[in-house]
Amino acid sequence: MVKVRKKVNEMEPYVPGKSIKEIAEKYGLREEDIVKLGSNENPLGPSPAAVRAMEEELESVNRYPESGLQDLRETVADYSGVDAEQVIIGGDGADEIIEVLGKTFMDPGCEFVVPMPSYMYYEYTLQSHDARPAYAVWNVEENRLELDSVLESLSDSTRLVFLCTPNNPTGGLIDKEDIRAVLESTDALVVVDEAYFEFAGVNNVDLLPEYENLFIMRTFSKVMGLAGMRIGYGLGSPALIEYMHRVKPVFSLTRLSHAAALATLNDREYIRRSAEYSIKSREFLYRELKKFDNIRVFRSYANYLLLDIRDTGKRASELAEELLKRGVIVRDCTSFKGLDEYWIRVSVGTLREDRKFLEVLAEIVG
Amino acid sequence: MVKVRKKVNEMEPYVPGKSIKEIAEKYGLREEDIVKLGSNENPLGPSPAAVRAMEEELESVNRYPESGLQDLRETVADYSGVDAEQVIIGGDGADEIIEVLGKTFMDPGCEFVVPMPSYMYYEYTLQSHDARPAYAVWNVEENRLELDSVLESLSDSTRLVFLCTPNNPTGGLIDKEDIRAVLESTDALVVVDEAYFEFAGVNNVDLLPEYENLFIMRTFSKVMGLAGMRIGYGLGSPALIEYMHRVKPVFSLTRLSHAAALATLNDREYIRRSAEYSIKSREFLYRELKKFDNIRVFRSYANYLLLDIRDTGKRASELAEELLKRGVIVRDCTSFKGLDEYWIRVSVGTLREDRKFLEVLAEIVG
Repeated sequence: MVKVRKKVNEMEPYVPGKSIKEIAEKYGLREEDIVKLGSNENPLGPSPAAVRAMEEELESVNRYPESGLQDLRETVADYSGVDAEQVIIGGDGADEIIEVLGKTFMDPGCEFVVPMPSYMYYEYTLQSHDARPAYAVWNVEENRLELDSVLESLSDSTRLVFLCTPNNPTGGLIDKEDIRAVLESTDALVVVDEAYFEFAGVNNVDLLPEYENLFIMRTFSKVMGLAGMRIGYGLGSPALIEYMHRVKPVFSLTRLSHAAALATLNDREYIRRSAEYSIKSREFLYRELKKFDNIRVFRSYANYLLLDIRDTGKRASELAEELLKRGVIVRDCTSFKGLDEYWIRVSVGTLREDRKFLEVLAEIVG
Repeated sequence: MVKVRKKVNEMEPYVPGKSIKEIAEKYGLREEDIVKLGSNENPLGPSPAAVRAMEEELESVNRYPESGLQDLRETVADYSGVDAEQVIIGGDGADEIIEVLGKTFMDPGCEFVVPMPSYMYYEYTLQSHDARPAYAVWNVEENRLELDSVLESLSDSTRLVFLCTPNNPTGGLIDKEDIRAVLESTDALVVVDEAYFEFAGVNNVDLLPEYENLFIMRTFSKVMGLAGMRIGYGLGSPALIEYMHRVKPVFSLTRLSHAAALATLNDREYIRRSAEYSIKSREFLYRELKKFDNIRVFRSYANYLLLDIRDTGKRASELAEELLKRGVIVRDCTSFKGLDEYWIRVSVGTLREDRKFLEVLAEIVG
């Protein structure tokens, strides 16, 4: 066998998730009946304007995408309240942005700080850069960042600090003053992941002019309804964005993703309505889940809710499978570092999907 | 400013290409009149089956893509004559495959061998891995690989060897016996880039069972007519493919790219017809270009032709701009290492596009 890198040799083999088709076959379900509450997607579907824009572009997919994406950078800048030169577009959702951050900042042996539990893809991506994680603490009970744990995790080797707000999978927000405190305590780049900010109604763009070590990361996969088209973006200082472009894949955004992203940003009414709907759905789901006496549900500012299910006597893997048998996909959180095997994350769906989830859940643990 | 990696600091800033819209505005052209012979795309457009498959999937783009892509791996395997476990899919064309190869094999200071001139993206991608290029020689005059130069470039630090056949931008083929000789001279992975193999009618899949250090890389961007959807694939030993999946981005292939790739592979008649058409167009263009007494044209097995234009007295950048003013995009090859400033690569278009190119060229240099 050819010699792969030591790090790759040590890594776990990748186990792909089951497709909807495989799930339907395994449990004897119809694909269209399966309720998907596992991935924090927009349950209303994409913007009709995005669908039309892609439709008009279908015959041109034999041509390479544009490399500069200037129009999209300008439109994102306008939406976000920054200048176009402060914007970088990711062609694999925000995941590509994380990879580009790794290429820009991570030498072997350097460290990144990430609270537990938080989004797992930071570590998944950076481990192949031979970077070392330094774990801080997200206090799940109080659903807040332990600021001191972040400050204590900083070292001379720290190159990146990840702060996810609202935090995935807990749904809590990070105080702006805490973000400020981290920014002022390090020369490392502080990456504030605002994938879900539209559901919280607050963001941290106002800090960008003050701190050149701040980078804000966002996605079209949540409220924008385009998870399947893999579009993300980042906001930072023009100098930082210029460095990142040196190592970014040049053509990674598909032609149709480009068209869909532009059309969605120009459909502000869709974005507003989507956020409003998911917030309403979240509050409904929260109230109803509160009624289960063997489930603890946490306040969330995002489009999902974290559930502590240990009092049901079931492990998350068991409960998730029982839900799946009945056609509802939720996220078993066992693989999140910092959570044990008794946590479930459920995305908010349409009100009808929420009700189906609640009914099925009541059948199993009620 | 936050501290970026030394390598990134040394790299050149990225200069994006102009969009078609910008070109049209600059030269006062209509976008639909511009003839694109710069990127080796399929001039016939995508498969109608691919267009239909994407159309059916448009409303589902709010959902994440599948991660396993088992159906696509099986269909690629069937097309290529291998098993599904020998297939990896790239979500940013073959460019993502190159990045994954870098992550799988390249530690700082390791080397990769690449002939000059050849596809520039190998080096563009691997430089950010702190890998060192060792340059071999493509003999442009005889349009063949200098095998000895490859063998002499091998060292104990070599991890990857890139052999592009047909070679971009020269169009020549590498003899199977030469590929064999390289495979037998090294433990490094030999990456045979067959992006254009359908236009040559030959490939090297038959060597896979014999050599575990062989990897074949291909794309949906050429004869498959899907450059805008960013799909590539690689073929190798099951063990190698398993390693590569450990570091591959999980969701990088868009839902629509997935649908389009499957539909195109199932439309074998489209693939056959596309290859046949581009070969006919190439031979037409070759014969006509032969008639220019101040241009040398080289035999090609791909869907482009390399032209030596020094006897016109113009540099490639000048000629490319004069063509552009008249609505024809070709590739100025000055940035290809191993070529000087007097080379142009022209993709074969529809016969009508070929004629427009020939007419315009005659106006300029005839």
